[in-house]
Amino acid sequence: MNVYLDHAATTPVRPEVVEAMLPYLTDFYGNSSSIHGIGRKAHAGLDGARRTIADILGAKTNEIIFTSGGSESDNTALRGIALARRRQTGANRIVTTVVEHKAVLETALDLRDHFGFDVTLIPVDGDGMARVDDVAPLLGEDVAVVSVMLANNEVGTIQPVGEIGAICRARGIPFHTDAVQAAGKLPLDVHSLRVDALSGGAHKFYGPKGVGFLYLRQGTPFQPTLTGGSHEGSRRAGTENVAGIVAMAKALELAEIEREVEMRRLQLLRDWLIGGILEKVDGVHLTGSPFHRLPNHASFLINGVEAEGVLIGLDLAGIAASSGSACTSAAQKPSHVLEAMGIPAQDAVGGLRLSLGRSNTPEQIEYVLAKLPRIVEQIRGSVPIAF
Amino acid sequence: MNVYLDHAATTPVRPEVVEAMLPYLTDFYGNSSSIHGIGRKAHAGLDGARRTIADILGAKTNEIIFTSGGSESDNTALRGIALARRRQTGANRIVTTVVEHKAVLETALDLRDHFGFDVTLIPVDGDGMARVDDVAPLLGEDVAVVSVMLANNEVGTIQPVGEIGAICRARGIPFHTDAVQAAGKLPLDVHSLRVDALSGGAHKFYGPKGVGFLYLRQGTPFQPTLTGGSHEGSRRAGTENVAGIVAMAKALELAEIEREVEMRRLQLLRDWLIGGILEKVDGVHLTGSPFHRLPNHASFLINGVEAEGVLIGLDLAGIAASSGSACTSAAQKPSHVLEAMGIPAQDAVGGLRLSLGRSNTPEQIEYVLAKLPRIVEQIRGSVPIAF
Repeated sequence: MNVYLDHAATTPVRPEVVEAMLPYLTDFYGNSSSIHGIGRKAHAGLDGARRTIADILGAKTNEIIFTSGGSESDNTALRGIALARRRQTGANRIVTTVVEHKAVLETALDLRDHFGFDVTLIPVDGDGMARVDDVAPLLGEDVAVVSVMLANNEVGTIQPVGEIGAICRARGIPFHTDAVQAAGKLPLDVHSLRVDALSGGAHKFYGPKGVGFLYLRQGTPFQPTLTGGSHEGSRRAGTENVAGIVAMAKALELAEIEREVEMRRLQLLRDWLIGGILEKVDGVHLTGSPFHRLPNHASFLINGVEAEGVLIGLDLAGIAASSGSACTSAAQKPSHVLEAMGIPAQDAVGGLRLSLGRSNTPEQIEYVLAKLPRIVEQIRGSVPIAF
Repeated sequence: MNVYLDHAATTPVRPEVVEAMLPYLTDFYGNSSSIHGIGRKAHAGLDGARRTIADILGAKTNEIIFTSGGSESDNTALRGIALARRRQTGANRIVTTVVEHKAVLETALDLRDHFGFDVTLIPVDGDGMARVDDVAPLLGEDVAVVSVMLANNEVGTIQPVGEIGAICRARGIPFHTDAVQAAGKLPLDVHSLRVDALSGGAHKFYGPKGVGFLYLRQGTPFQPTLTGGSHEGSRRAGTENVAGIVAMAKALELAEIEREVEMRRLQLLRDWLIGGILEKVDGVHLTGSPFHRLPNHASFLINGVEAEGVLIGLDLAGIAASSGSACTSAAQKPSHVLEAMGIPAQDAVGGLRLSLGRSNTPEQIEYVLAKLPRIVEQIRGSVPIAF
């Protein structure tokens, strides 16, 4: 049996999305900046996609900037807002959380190390959650931009973005949220979230890799990171990836239509999976908030094992999983998220993330629950290794 | 008859390329950073693509960085090299030509306006060519990076990149070339070109939009523009667009295999087109070098007309063309390239670019030569408008 439980890393492109995409590769291939017929067809595809995504976010179409993915969106928001706002007001501090995705965290540190910003990192509690009371006192006039992720990629915890957003808005501080993990799973209404910027990437919600979006609220201080032509309202240069953008809009539209029903289904499967693992595997506990977490996301800390061994064992059993984040897995360092949650470095190597999606069935959960306990025991050496 | 003569703006994705791309959207969809089977399959696709492109450029695989397209590659090279080299040596000047694509020119100006660099623009002659004798005296110790395009997008002129590169290398100055227009049409051997960085974008050579590459010679000073995960040797963050990258490699491989034969074919068609237009349309002349130009590229200045009218007339006749650059067409300003070549602003609105490609046939050239003269005359008002 093949079981893909790494939907937080990436997802396959849905057949309907491939179908929506193909004509823009081969037939409506024009450059959307061209004034001839085939360019206008490409432009119409782009316009439709922008409208679809704007509607889902409750945004205006000119507030949507297409990018090459979530990481670029995060970079564009942080760099673009921080640099522009410093020029306007002199504010020189970036405030973000210790558990952000590297695309935010490393960018904040790059802005510190190479561009002279100060960075303040908001701590989190044992569930990986930033407390609004910790954030509020940090938000003074010297803050150029605040960035708090909507949901954590490694442990699934949903942050109190709307509440932090309300404080930022009252104090006139631009507020960005990395919604890369949340998109397609949680509501993305930018008004309830009270964000000035929101990042998403298509390949997390059954769209293609290499395309994403950035919501940028009208009037938010901003300077482009990629300069050149007047694409995207002179905010992001480069010939638009029309096929990818059309595909992303289709994928987000489908995800939004199916969201409530599908997330209820996945949450049931996930809770069964969590319950089963906690019951059947010794020395394991759930990481992240048990309640405020992504409906498709299960993450654990397994005592006395390194994640890699478990992942290899699962892979041999046909189960694709992750230690926490695909983006940092090459580095094989202890998870900065688990460490920030108070887990000692020597234990933070035992993270396991199982993220569910469209392909998963009850039979697959049963299969994982049958395989995982033995794999962990084998690695712990309590039973002989015989895959 | 439908005639697409805007291949310099963009090209359709070849069927073989779509075929190479599809499995990575739907079957081998893993995150190439993941350690499980489906991630490793994606990683293998990525490795193969990197090898293919490196081989065509005569580069090492670790010298190829995948990006979201030519504009990002240009930005990444200029920003990444200029900022890193200034930190290393204090060199604070960017040298580039007046006729660069906006992705280079605007980026140089952005580095001047927002990051404190000085910018020196190399002039060009009436053919749009930078003279090596003009460049050499500018290349002192204060130069952080030099960027000279391999071939111009608007007028097709091929610059003496290898000669300028030799001077840069002798003086230890990093040298970048924007090869976005040249890729698939001219040899891209980075040793003969003597470049430290070279930018390309897939959609100019029958690959998909939204993916490109940057060659970055080992040892070149560099800091990333997009930070986050450790993708691309920590030089460009973001989940790799595996399907797009595999497609780009396939497209460049096919272009390289067919290059000599296809370029000879296109050059014949182009020369027929140029000869016919010069003969049949009054008050028209070729822009750019008659000899050192892209084999598929014809560009003209038509006296007494605005390009837009001609383009609309051509579009109504089923012919897709451009005024010079799709990337700046929304702006409708006089071409900075034509102005740099000494053409007065009021005349520089009459540019027409006809760029040939795989779909073009002799019959199509005949058709364009039959239609264009009358369209120009109609716009000039010398014959009544009746499309």
